[in-house]
Amino acid sequence: MASFEIGAYLETQRATVDSHLDEFLPPEEEYPEVIHRAMRYSVFAGGKRIRPILALAASEAVGGDFERAVRLACALELIHTYSLIHDDLPAMDDDDHRRGRLTCHKVFGEGIAILAGNGLMAHAFQLLTEIPGGVDFSATKIEVLNGLCRAIGTQRGVIAGQVVDLVTQGKPFSAKELEYIHSSKTGALIEASVFCSAILAGAEDGYLRCLRTFGLKVGLAFQIIDDILDMEGSREELGKTPGKDMVEQKATYPAFYGVQKSREAADSLVAEAIAAIECLGDKGVALRELARFISIRRF
Amino acid sequence: MASFEIGAYLETQRATVDSHLDEFLPPEEEYPEVIHRAMRYSVFAGGKRIRPILALAASEAVGGDFERAVRLACALELIHTYSLIHDDLPAMDDDDHRRGRLTCHKVFGEGIAILAGNGLMAHAFQLLTEIPGGVDFSATKIEVLNGLCRAIGTQRGVIAGQVVDLVTQGKPFSAKELEYIHSSKTGALIEASVFCSAILAGAEDGYLRCLRTFGLKVGLAFQIIDDILDMEGSREELGKTPGKDMVEQKATYPAFYGVQKSREAADSLVAEAIAAIECLGDKGVALRELARFISIRRF
Repeated sequence: MASFEIGAYLETQRATVDSHLDEFLPPEEEYPEVIHRAMRYSVFAGGKRIRPILALAASEAVGGDFERAVRLACALELIHTYSLIHDDLPAMDDDDHRRGRLTCHKVFGEGIAILAGNGLMAHAFQLLTEIPGGVDFSATKIEVLNGLCRAIGTQRGVIAGQVVDLVTQGKPFSAKELEYIHSSKTGALIEASVFCSAILAGAEDGYLRCLRTFGLKVGLAFQIIDDILDMEGSREELGKTPGKDMVEQKATYPAFYGVQKSREAADSLVAEAIAAIECLGDKGVALRELARFISIRRF
Repeated sequence: MASFEIGAYLETQRATVDSHLDEFLPPEEEYPEVIHRAMRYSVFAGGKRIRPILALAASEAVGGDFERAVRLACALELIHTYSLIHDDLPAMDDDDHRRGRLTCHKVFGEGIAILAGNGLMAHAFQLLTEIPGGVDFSATKIEVLNGLCRAIGTQRGVIAGQVVDLVTQGKPFSAKELEYIHSSKTGALIEASVFCSAILAGAEDGYLRCLRTFGLKVGLAFQIIDDILDMEGSREELGKTPGKDMVEQKATYPAFYGVQKSREAADSLVAEAIAAIECLGDKGVALRELARFISIRRF
């Protein structure tokens, strides 16, 4: 097996995702310009592209078609960005900065920021309906769309996680609520990134199952590390104010279990994720390295 | 041809739509309860159900399957409700009342209202992916989904109309901007209600074309009448503060052309809509009466 350079891999994949996002989004010059400017402002704000990169890696691992996978990958990033724009609003987390830049509503106003989020969600679904493949491929597209709707919805999806996150702020929270927030708010979309990509690629049931487990565990590990970084990271590394979760008494893993136990939990989850995709053999190298990267990342 | 009682028809269809909305929405008791309560609060706030009723009528006119049509009908109402919840937010139109009740954010807070809107959009798409019909029917579902994404999006869809509505508030506006707001913010979803329903029903191209024209013209007439009612209606009839558009210097038809000319424009549009579906003959009776009702309604 050739050696795998995760740094170079991330850079290449990020550039691929970015150029396709640019292709799939309406141009800034299209009327009404302000909404397309706002959407692009937040999409091109320096995101790590973890979800689309996981989707592309999952597709490649099971022999999926790139032109199809890259549309799903970009739709995932549009959905992720919509959730961030709305999360940052004054009525939600009230963040002025993200990734070192002013948040969408600070630049464009709250009304346009709300609409930019909505526009990204609508555009993501439109992109998914336009995945190439002919009439016979439509049933697979419907399955992918259904999986994504569930992943972002109010029944254990991203929105459900945002709700519990919002209503537990500043209040005592239980281990069950914490687990619900993590698995819904972050876990569900990362799980869907891997799982829906495998469906789109036409993966066999056995691979679907193990990739779903992989996605679930990586998603949880990702959120735990995020919470730890919020406690320990610097403003330069994070691009936002560190320690904000604690000030706002948010339900986080390190607040509940402490940093040491949280890091151990993340490490275990990553190990379990990697074990789950043993069946992929050499084809799973990128997914394995991505899982490892998630647990050691500093931003 | 038997006589057609539009009042009784509307009442029956509204009850049908309401009972299916109740069936398709997550129950209030489902965790996290507050989001499902907020979604249901706004969905069951006494809406006229114009879009779902038009969708059911269009489906019936071309011999569509009821079980399929009613899911699309309910998805349209969920999408419409999501756009109203977000429209009422302080950052948008800042309305405390709608249909005689407090708006969603006044009861549940802004954060939950934003998320309830998002949840309704996600749930609408999920409902569409779950329209019954087997694998062979998937291509039709994808076509319907694509049509709806375009109808709500930032490129001449509902969101685009909301954007132009927002940025023209309190400023001089042109006839072109007014036309854009009307055809996008309201017209696009009403057009899609008729057009997507016809696609779902498997209507022939000739019927698709004439139903699309019908939907477009009815949609524009509906918005013009809405603007006139905002000027002339009473608080009891409207369930909200009348004259608000004028106070906020919103881009409306009567503000630009005067009430008399606006009413003439709406009447012409309804006449053109009715002429467009001549091809349907007796099967078009419900659609014709719905178009007439839209132009004479007082609420």
